[in-house]
Parts: sequence; structure tokens; C-alpha cells
Amino acid sequence: MTVLLQVDFSMPAEMLGENLSNSAIGLAESITQEAGFISKIWTENLAAKEAGGIYLFTDRKSAERYWDMHKKRMATFGVKNANAKIFDINLPLTKITHGKID
Amino acid sequence: MTVLLQVDFSMPAEMLGENLSNSAIGLAESITQEAGFISKIWTENLAAKEAGGIYLFTDRKSAERYWDMHKKRMATFGVKNANAKIFDINLPLTKITHGKID
Repeated sequence: MTVLLQVDFSMPAEMLGENLSNSAIGLAESITQEAGFISKIWTENLAAKEAGGIYLFTDRKSAERYWDMHKKRMATFGVKNANAKIFDINLPLTKITHGKID
Repeated sequence: MTVLLQVDFSMPAEMLGENLSNSAIGLAESITQEAGFISKIWTENLAAKEAGGIYLFTDRKSAERYWDMHKKRMATFGVKNANAKIFDINLPLTKITHGKID
């Protein structure tokens, strides 16, 4: 059953936007190869110096495995206080509101 | 430019899942009529007694207007401590990772 991994964290504005678009291409490509990965929307707010991601995975185990790996990787980038939550999806309501989950 | 509104909050487990699917049909239908609304994924974690939503809006003003209204409405449901963040979307990276934003 599809799950959603919601991640957000603080990051200097100069690492976001176009700079991130350029620096994270290889990372983005590698993420698409992770087990159970469906998609990621890359979120950012330069004014608030925050960023994150909204991921979909095919199952909770895959999302948990990814997050265990990714939080260590993010620590090597200097990101230490990321918030992460894994959610189930309410399918009937999401269907009414046009949410795309595959 | 499309923005993402990320909302999460605490909610008793008995209000979520199938019960929410039944009780929130009218709310879900009304949300699709909001100005600038694109989509909402309904998130929930019964074990953690948490829920939320990942919304897409066509522009930041619409997202802000919706959230100003919705947080007051949620307070009438007994939800008082919702976290909300409005993010821009990094389009080049989101394209690589198959994120759907329209």
C-alpha cells in the first residue's frame, strides 16, 4: 500500500533554488533507483531557509529503509535536524480531491 | 507558480481511516472548489494519531488564503496545533524524480 514520506529541514538559501537544481542532479537520479520508490516532489522556501521532500513509496518498509539511509546521508551534507513522518494515504478522500499517488 | 501546502496535526485514531472516509466526503468535495486548488493527498497515521494533507495550489496567494480559512475551520473540529508550511517546488529536480504537480 502506497505510503507518503514527508521530510523538511533547515538549509541555507544559497544551497537551494538554481544552485540545488545543479548540484543535486546525480542525487535525484540515484533516488529514482531506490527500492519501492515512486516519486519525490522537491520542496523549498528560500525566504524561510527551509527545504524538504514529499515522497511516495510502494510500501512502508521501503520508506523506512530509505529514510534510515537518507538521514545519515543528509547529516554528511550538514543537515542534522530533519523532521520526517511516514503516513498512510486515505484513498477514498484523496480520489475525490484529485491527489496523484502513482 | 505551483506551490505545495504541507499540513499535519494530531487527531484521535477513531476519527481517521474509514470513519474519516465517511465523515469528510462533503468537506473533500468542497475543497476541490477552492480558488487555485489543484489537488490534495490525505495523509494519516492511526498508530501515531496524526493526520494531515499535502496540497497543491496554482499560486502562493491561493494557498495562504485557503490555509487562513482552513485553520479556523479545523479549530472548530477540535484541531488546534496544526503545523503548516507553504513551499515552492524545485521543478528540474522534481521532474527527474517523477513528481506530479498538476
